[in-house]
Amino acid sequence: MTDTGHNEMSWAGWGDPSRAAPLPEAIARLLSDGLGVSGATHVPASISDLRLVPTRLASETSDEIAAVIGEAHISGAHEQRARHALGRSTIDLLRLRSGEPLAAPDLVVFPGSHEEILALLELCSRRRVAVVPFGGGTSVVGGLTPEVGAFAGSVALDLRRLSGLVAFDAESRLATLGPGLRGPEAEALVNERGYTIGHFPQSFEYATLGGFAAARSSGQASAGYGRFDELVQRLRVATPAGTLALGRAPKSAAGPDLRQLILGSEGAFGVITELSVAVRPVPAERIYEGWLMRDFDHGIAAVARLAQDGPAPTVLRLSDEAETAIGLARPDRLGQSDGEGCLAIVGWEGSTEDVLSRHEGTTRLLRAAGAAPVAGAGDQWARGRFDAPYLRDSLLDAGALVETLETATFWSSVRGLYAAVTAALRDSLTEQGTPPVILCHVSHTYRSGASLYFTVVCAQLPEPIAQWRRAKAAASDAILRAGGSISHHHGVGIDHRAGLGNEIGDLGVGVLAAIKRTLDPAGILNPGVLIEG
Amino acid sequence: MTDTGHNEMSWAGWGDPSRAAPLPEAIARLLSDGLGVSGATHVPASISDLRLVPTRLASETSDEIAAVIGEAHISGAHEQRARHALGRSTIDLLRLRSGEPLAAPDLVVFPGSHEEILALLELCSRRRVAVVPFGGGTSVVGGLTPEVGAFAGSVALDLRRLSGLVAFDAESRLATLGPGLRGPEAEALVNERGYTIGHFPQSFEYATLGGFAAARSSGQASAGYGRFDELVQRLRVATPAGTLALGRAPKSAAGPDLRQLILGSEGAFGVITELSVAVRPVPAERIYEGWLMRDFDHGIAAVARLAQDGPAPTVLRLSDEAETAIGLARPDRLGQSDGEGCLAIVGWEGSTEDVLSRHEGTTRLLRAAGAAPVAGAGDQWARGRFDAPYLRDSLLDAGALVETLETATFWSSVRGLYAAVTAALRDSLTEQGTPPVILCHVSHTYRSGASLYFTVVCAQLPEPIAQWRRAKAAASDAILRAGGSISHHHGVGIDHRAGLGNEIGDLGVGVLAAIKRTLDPAGILNPGVLIEG
Repeated sequence: MTDTGHNEMSWAGWGDPSRAAPLPEAIARLLSDGLGVSGATHVPASISDLRLVPTRLASETSDEIAAVIGEAHISGAHEQRARHALGRSTIDLLRLRSGEPLAAPDLVVFPGSHEEILALLELCSRRRVAVVPFGGGTSVVGGLTPEVGAFAGSVALDLRRLSGLVAFDAESRLATLGPGLRGPEAEALVNERGYTIGHFPQSFEYATLGGFAAARSSGQASAGYGRFDELVQRLRVATPAGTLALGRAPKSAAGPDLRQLILGSEGAFGVITELSVAVRPVPAERIYEGWLMRDFDHGIAAVARLAQDGPAPTVLRLSDEAETAIGLARPDRLGQSDGEGCLAIVGWEGSTEDVLSRHEGTTRLLRAAGAAPVAGAGDQWARGRFDAPYLRDSLLDAGALVETLETATFWSSVRGLYAAVTAALRDSLTEQGTPPVILCHVSHTYRSGASLYFTVVCAQLPEPIAQWRRAKAAASDAILRAGGSISHHHGVGIDHRAGLGNEIGDLGVGVLAAIKRTLDPAGILNPGVLIEG
Repeated sequence: MTDTGHNEMSWAGWGDPSRAAPLPEAIARLLSDGLGVSGATHVPASISDLRLVPTRLASETSDEIAAVIGEAHISGAHEQRARHALGRSTIDLLRLRSGEPLAAPDLVVFPGSHEEILALLELCSRRRVAVVPFGGGTSVVGGLTPEVGAFAGSVALDLRRLSGLVAFDAESRLATLGPGLRGPEAEALVNERGYTIGHFPQSFEYATLGGFAAARSSGQASAGYGRFDELVQRLRVATPAGTLALGRAPKSAAGPDLRQLILGSEGAFGVITELSVAVRPVPAERIYEGWLMRDFDHGIAAVARLAQDGPAPTVLRLSDEAETAIGLARPDRLGQSDGEGCLAIVGWEGSTEDVLSRHEGTTRLLRAAGAAPVAGAGDQWARGRFDAPYLRDSLLDAGALVETLETATFWSSVRGLYAAVTAALRDSLTEQGTPPVILCHVSHTYRSGASLYFTVVCAQLPEPIAQWRRAKAAASDAILRAGGSISHHHGVGIDHRAGLGNEIGDLGVGVLAAIKRTLDPAGILNPGVLIEG
């Protein structure tokens, strides 16, 4: 094992255990008084307490893999298997806490090159061993728990050793990077040269560039910098059928854009081994502000205007009344008709001149829409922008069920989608005896539409996984009927496979299956993720 | 036939014959004195003089098609066959002039609905009849001359009857339109409502929305409005395997973006029967200016800065020294080292405030780069922006060989690509005894790169098609070696199929073939276009 320098994420939850946050008093009171949450849940004391299903991989296959990757870069140890067994959805975390034996890869491999990955894929195709590409391990849609029962074993392909700056082209503002780089590592490499990628999703601190690309990630500043799938200009992909090298220009009319097939393929078509992403100069100026809108309806109209007519801010999100009440630490105001209004976070990044000019234009539009500034709210958001997953761990510890889901649609359907998903979640959980608190914000805006990001909190039932699956199915049905997409930026994984099928139809699924058969004839890559294996 | 209201394009050349332009005196002198062009070429006197290969379609198949589409909406008449036989590449125009019998569809059909097209595709799959989707007929890459020899006949599927405004969603700024609408017709429909699509390629006046989408068109104002593939938000596609309905949100993480597979599929995967495109308010202000840069090298650096750091203009193009000399009507200065410099056309469209602000920012940057304004050059460009194809007709009439080609790459490769393509064209044509004039401009700019658009003029040899194919092959090789894409916005068709294969490799071609097999199992759609049939 060569990974001593790797800053491992908490095996049982999010990120750095030393940053785990106790529940704010107001939230604790909401749980106990408002939602009837009582009593902490069981958390395994140490990673060695986790039970894993036995390994199945034949030892001669292990030996062959060791010959390809190098003995020093493979591990079948309990801890490595456990660390690569799950993503970070609430279902994943509940499984960790369930005491049931966890499915886990038989072997974890840490290849050092594109060529080693090609050889591994060839070998695993021949031996019918499933391969699960593993970046930061932060999937929240079951992207790391494929269906491997039909295979002779499974291997987690951890990309952390592909973490270099391969090339830096300042003239084209392109950084060619390894897929195993986590967000902060990649930022540091380009920051040194005066540039930023500008991609800051909530998973930024632990997720990797390869994962951002494979799952079509969208960051908090995507209104300004673009989604990750817009930043990726060039891809090198190792597949069981060989290498794909895609992207000779920012845009082309040389047939369909095959980059857009790999972006969103979630490791089911191939392994991204190198990617070139657009960079911009490190912004000289960053301003984040909070603005209070009268209500969600007026707020939606105002952020749509900003997205459509500009000047476009770099960050733009709008909380509904409930999320605003929680965000402003007034959970007692939840559900009251004389609420606080709705908080928008508006941010600008860029050169001083550019930021001042856009700030002035945006401010004029916000004031004209009747919004009022909220002192300190922007900076507070910026300080805590990557912290929500820590709060989820604390909520789960306290016995709450908490999860997020997200969707997107065109502006004329945003309000209907909001109402439909909220009602579906509330009805499903209330019927189950656990009336929830549901928070929502418009998380990403475009000229023609926006995404909605929901957070749901309620008391855990004795079977919390089944409880959540029922609520999630109701929400997914509501999304389909209201015209939304099953995911704006979390991806498909196993959890959204049915939703994807409903969205693109059997023929669309047939297209994806045909592509998979071409690139991965033995079907070893992340089987069951994206489409049925 | 129901098409009497349709403003037919000249059967022998571009557009409206009454707008045909005589050659400017300076150009005529350049041809005779500089390039040795002598004597007009043969042009058929009327469409009835064109010889067409005999039809092959069985009459019972014709009858079946008539039953699906309606007798009034199909035609096997000589004129309709001739009008649907070719696109508008120079090779197409030379074929028209060659006197050789032209391959032409056996039948032209004008379906009126998505359902009729589905039924037609089912029928033609069963009867093994090739189907060629036909929009404006403006392909310049052989997109309308597929390889139909292995089929029981071929049908041109003219989309002109699918030309409605299906829906207008002002809140989402989305217009849902029929694919058969030409550029000006679509603009008129949205202009009435106060909006513009903003897509103005050189083919604007005759090309259709379906063609823009299927070929990944990019307009002259794409720096401001985006490419057509960026404007398309939703697609309905009829394929032999059924219907694809794609796009539930501006952006999504629900797997790979399948819209990007249809965009660029050039009628080989399915027929776009409806599309929703982003619209913007009709600009209150439009300013176009000409700026003279010291030379192409300095000009490239300046337009790259504008594209990267902004404020981004709506229109941005930069001619090289040769194109500038011709554009400023000084062909006598061609090739002189004390040239005029390089002309950039810079345009701004939008609200008055937005235009004035960006104009000020751009102007500051241009002056800092040493550029000087050229009175009247911007307006002159705007007046003639759709006229170049008329000039080509006149040049062909005069006995010149003239064609354009285009490519794109990242900024750090732009100069190398320019030098390589220029040298390849010059060497190939000079070796053939017809030294050319080669003009070039940067036609579209992005943060990470740009496109280059070349115009080549020389004397025609007795076999001008072979002459041009040889030069084009040399240019395509040079593009591949210099890292460019085989097309930035013209598309693939038949002409660039080999270039596409070199660009995406056998595995990429295999992916396209697998998609085609799924959507078009009998391979009837535009056979040979994009990939081998």
